[in-house]
Amino acid sequence: MNLEKLFNPKSIAVVGASSEEGKIGNVIAKNIIELGYQGEVFLVNPKYDEIFGKKCHKSLNEIEKEVDLAIIAIPAKFVNQEIKNNAEKIKNYIVISAGFSEIGKEGRKQEEDLAKIAKENDLNILGPNCLGFIIPSLKLNASFAGGMPEAGNISFVSQSGALAVALMDKAKKEGLKFSNIVSVGNKMQIAEEEMLEYLAKDENTKVIGMYLEGIKGGKKFVEIVGNVSRVKPVVILKAGKNEKTQKAISSHTGALAGDDEIVSAVLKKAGIIRAENLGEFFNLLSLISFSETFPNQKVAVITNAGGAGVLASDAFSGKNIQMANFDEETKNKLREILPLESSVENPIDLLGDATADRYRNVLEIISKVEEIGSVICLLTPQEQTPVLKIASEIIKFKEKTDKIISTVFLGGEKVEKGIAKLKQSGICNFNFPDSAVLAIDEYYKWSESKNLKIKSEAQIINKKRQEKVLEIIKRAKSENRQALYFEESAEVMKLYGISTVESFEIQNYRERTFRYPVALKIDSDKILHKTDKNGLILGIKDESELSKAISRMHTSFPGSKFIIQPMAEKGMELIVGIKKDEIFGPVVVYGLGGIYAEFLKTVDYLVPPLNLGETEKSLTEGKIKFLFQGVRGQRKYNLEETARILMGIGALSLEIPEICEFDINPLFVYNNGQEATAVDVKIII
Amino acid sequence: MNLEKLFNPKSIAVVGASSEEGKIGNVIAKNIIELGYQGEVFLVNPKYDEIFGKKCHKSLNEIEKEVDLAIIAIPAKFVNQEIKNNAEKIKNYIVISAGFSEIGKEGRKQEEDLAKIAKENDLNILGPNCLGFIIPSLKLNASFAGGMPEAGNISFVSQSGALAVALMDKAKKEGLKFSNIVSVGNKMQIAEEEMLEYLAKDENTKVIGMYLEGIKGGKKFVEIVGNVSRVKPVVILKAGKNEKTQKAISSHTGALAGDDEIVSAVLKKAGIIRAENLGEFFNLLSLISFSETFPNQKVAVITNAGGAGVLASDAFSGKNIQMANFDEETKNKLREILPLESSVENPIDLLGDATADRYRNVLEIISKVEEIGSVICLLTPQEQTPVLKIASEIIKFKEKTDKIISTVFLGGEKVEKGIAKLKQSGICNFNFPDSAVLAIDEYYKWSESKNLKIKSEAQIINKKRQEKVLEIIKRAKSENRQALYFEESAEVMKLYGISTVESFEIQNYRERTFRYPVALKIDSDKILHKTDKNGLILGIKDESELSKAISRMHTSFPGSKFIIQPMAEKGMELIVGIKKDEIFGPVVVYGLGGIYAEFLKTVDYLVPPLNLGETEKSLTEGKIKFLFQGVRGQRKYNLEETARILMGIGALSLEIPEICEFDINPLFVYNNGQEATAVDVKIII
Repeated sequence: MNLEKLFNPKSIAVVGASSEEGKIGNVIAKNIIELGYQGEVFLVNPKYDEIFGKKCHKSLNEIEKEVDLAIIAIPAKFVNQEIKNNAEKIKNYIVISAGFSEIGKEGRKQEEDLAKIAKENDLNILGPNCLGFIIPSLKLNASFAGGMPEAGNISFVSQSGALAVALMDKAKKEGLKFSNIVSVGNKMQIAEEEMLEYLAKDENTKVIGMYLEGIKGGKKFVEIVGNVSRVKPVVILKAGKNEKTQKAISSHTGALAGDDEIVSAVLKKAGIIRAENLGEFFNLLSLISFSETFPNQKVAVITNAGGAGVLASDAFSGKNIQMANFDEETKNKLREILPLESSVENPIDLLGDATADRYRNVLEIISKVEEIGSVICLLTPQEQTPVLKIASEIIKFKEKTDKIISTVFLGGEKVEKGIAKLKQSGICNFNFPDSAVLAIDEYYKWSESKNLKIKSEAQIINKKRQEKVLEIIKRAKSENRQALYFEESAEVMKLYGISTVESFEIQNYRERTFRYPVALKIDSDKILHKTDKNGLILGIKDESELSKAISRMHTSFPGSKFIIQPMAEKGMELIVGIKKDEIFGPVVVYGLGGIYAEFLKTVDYLVPPLNLGETEKSLTEGKIKFLFQGVRGQRKYNLEETARILMGIGALSLEIPEICEFDINPLFVYNNGQEATAVDVKIII
Repeated sequence: MNLEKLFNPKSIAVVGASSEEGKIGNVIAKNIIELGYQGEVFLVNPKYDEIFGKKCHKSLNEIEKEVDLAIIAIPAKFVNQEIKNNAEKIKNYIVISAGFSEIGKEGRKQEEDLAKIAKENDLNILGPNCLGFIIPSLKLNASFAGGMPEAGNISFVSQSGALAVALMDKAKKEGLKFSNIVSVGNKMQIAEEEMLEYLAKDENTKVIGMYLEGIKGGKKFVEIVGNVSRVKPVVILKAGKNEKTQKAISSHTGALAGDDEIVSAVLKKAGIIRAENLGEFFNLLSLISFSETFPNQKVAVITNAGGAGVLASDAFSGKNIQMANFDEETKNKLREILPLESSVENPIDLLGDATADRYRNVLEIISKVEEIGSVICLLTPQEQTPVLKIASEIIKFKEKTDKIISTVFLGGEKVEKGIAKLKQSGICNFNFPDSAVLAIDEYYKWSESKNLKIKSEAQIINKKRQEKVLEIIKRAKSENRQALYFEESAEVMKLYGISTVESFEIQNYRERTFRYPVALKIDSDKILHKTDKNGLILGIKDESELSKAISRMHTSFPGSKFIIQPMAEKGMELIVGIKKDEIFGPVVVYGLGGIYAEFLKTVDYLVPPLNLGETEKSLTEGKIKFLFQGVRGQRKYNLEETARILMGIGALSLEIPEICEFDINPLFVYNNGQEATAVDVKIII
């Protein structure tokens, strides 16, 4: 989609313009006319001849000049026809009007029709049910929110128009400046991925912030966002974490909220920074907008109150960034300029009577420590504290350094002016020490991940193995089975490089030679949870026991198929499965096995297609990372082998969408050189 | 300690008063004289005859009238002598001077001496190395922080003086009002527990907030705070979560920061609300200070922006409080007064064009829903939103209702005046929806826990069993052993009601009858990790295997003691131990067993003495709660039995402080009616 003209129109028509105060069409017309937009503006409303002393057209048709963008703010029932009538001449629209998919069945129908009109006529339509957009650099407020934010480098895309209004107001107070503010509403045609593609190329945009309730694009979203977020940081505040919320969302903009853990996995794969709440969202946009470089891992903290330093120090717990350790040279330099009672360890405590000189001198010394990428300056307003002077010193430091400097001026009235001064000079001030640490950490993690080559690659479909699997499935279906037999599953596993335990049919078992002890299992699509239904007998020691076991099984499950499996040496029990997400498609789920695994929540998610780098990263950073660290004198488990199994399942999930459910439970992995083995494989078709 | 006179003095002497601007003695003298304090004030400094036109005394001695409180702001080296000289006449002191235990060995010595002087003369000394205190209702600022906060119902006790200054400034802006602000500094004599005892009785104090870096009182703290926090909510911001921080603290006020997980367990047991960060700390103090009732579990959320409602809804995830479900009657009433597109589910979406009437009408309906204890009103400043009018309606609602009402007016300039109005009327406004939900949840949990009878009770020492155990330990010590033999440990366990597996000595094993399979173990204080050292052979099936195993053991560990144990049926593997905390003494640690238990972090802590209620609560709410819920069709494990074992260990930890280390690993618990059994018990003496 080419959205250039939509977001940079030379002429705009407001359909539904009104002179009546309080009407949306009134607000929009005023916003466009009065806030400095330089393009041509046409007002349209059959009821008026003139609005604000400006000619009012009876219809869009009547306008003879070229219209780059039409803003539609008329009752929903007239919208489709109006756009259809002008589709040949006018290609870009904002549909402000509500009354589409968000109101239920009828509205959904109308939205589908509108989408069809758009497609047939090659239109770009933002909305419907949206607030519009604002481009401060063009002085263009094509929305019914009031005011004109300052022009800057943040693009903010919001699924909720009303929330966007509040955030703009707050942003103004916090000194945030915007390149684009876009309300996507029902996202009929222009959703998050279209916006991302456009904003990735927008030169004025340094960081993209999105408030999303649902993610419409699924796989496409992952792919696009993955590409964008390697270039520009994307911060997403994704709502809809619990059931109750998902209810609220459906009645809000009719979006489908995805399972939250999968959403997290998807966002992580895509290299997106996920803000946990509005506060974090603001802090992240602010930090990134103001920072001229990327943070590295090491941070220095300066404070004039020990307690504030301690709280900052606490906040590093569990983070990827660290408080730098100063070398003796640096400490000696600090000792030279600081009073005896100061701390020259990080956090550097300048003491309560610290002057602007003391801050300046310490910053000077830190500026020469190369390994430090970020500095957090804490200040508490003591009686002796020259707040404004210290702010000036920090501003001067920022101008000279390539380190990221942020501040926490902790207080109320006494620090207000100082904070205002800092913000004017492009320094990000946080309310609390932990907010500063959190934001720097998230930005650091992003800047690290963008360098990793784990971006989404199109899955290369292995046609040959795909055909083989489909044949197996076809046969099972022709026999009216919902599940594959173990042998069939084993065959599928082999195609994806995964070993399974040996298995033998019970026919003529006496003539076969296999290693005891063995397990006897029912192999039926009817009995899926074998342990629950007595369809599994373990640890059978010899032929006579086996013979008895077989009789028992035949009695319990007459006519069923059974298999004999030599007992695998017990390894570390893992589970691996495929979860089909409604939005993102198949996701590989893996974790510790055992009956209480799910209660210990040691499960992680991977979004295929998978490459070795990202899969190993997930294993070594995820919940079962300890298996690959060799803890407690235990030997490490085989990282690459485990990763390749997960990648195999990832490939399977994409190549064979016919699989409804998939589970390996347990998968035994070993740390003694033995090959990892799937003991039971469930493939439901 | 009787701190009445210290905090409510009729006359005050300022020792070290100064006319020199910027000197601490200058600030204090001005604060006392100029801010409205009504008692008599004496200034003391040998250098001056007069300060601020007021007579200056050469020494404390010289003052002939009674002095209730002396504030000492002179160099540390003169402090002890000055107090000693006047100890007979003046009983209450604030030592502002720094240069005591926080500076190291020499200072520590001086602080010890000062403590001795205090004890011998029955003095109350606040500090040393503190900011002083402020009692707004007395217009008494006995500190070197500037200004006089408004009088209210919050008491704030801070270990960091400088941080207190910043927080006071911030509090002023947030509309918080104080009964007492106390900086405890080095806490030589008056630490958190003395303050708590005093503030519990202070009629002006409704909620106590504390910033602590270390907790000095240990067990005593738990006991006192446990009592106080059943009466008044205590909110603690405890710093010192990671190693680096603990370093910062030592160089700050020389406090010993406890292991953070144990601190959490202790605070939980004591019924304290622990704030995770400064933001939470403020929000909690604000909410509690402003609320006239306690929250119950049900909350209603009202919003004029769907997105804000969704974010609020998200914040309930994992909380104890819940969004109320409205009954049909309520929903019908809401439908009558709201536009069609509104949501009458919780969160109630009034839509972007909501007027003050709409807010009022909805609040009216909610006020009649009895089960709802709290209401959160969200507001975003749309063009049509009458912010101040809505604030007025909320204020009127508060006056009529006994529900807790709080607001989130989301925005900047457009909502500022509305927020100010709300705060003036005693309504707590939060910056973000999730902050509101979090604070209400914490307050709710507190109000629930205060009703539970799990308060600390003095441990009743069972002398008889104590003696028996001490005898066993004595014997082991006399044999130069550092650990008890298994049989001895089993004897100890029996005294505390805990069953162990049977065990037999290897002498004459052929003549004994026991059930195979058995385990053969080395039973030595030298080989403690049996599996690591091959000192354990499991699954020995018969006498011949046993005989071989014994020979092998004799070869590997000549001269050692061995025992034979029938293999216990494998149950759910738990571990139970005692961790000795430097500050709080013994703490019972329990969790899932198995070699990876520690990496799965399924460990919880209990602070003895333990009663059944709190122990069961810990089990059913902690990390292994699923064992007692009967999940996945499994039968439940025996809650009371497990609790009684933990209580036994708790009693043991208090009765026998001679035990250095204690571990049951594994403890098998069963869900088939079998008795829980300790398979291995390690008691290091």
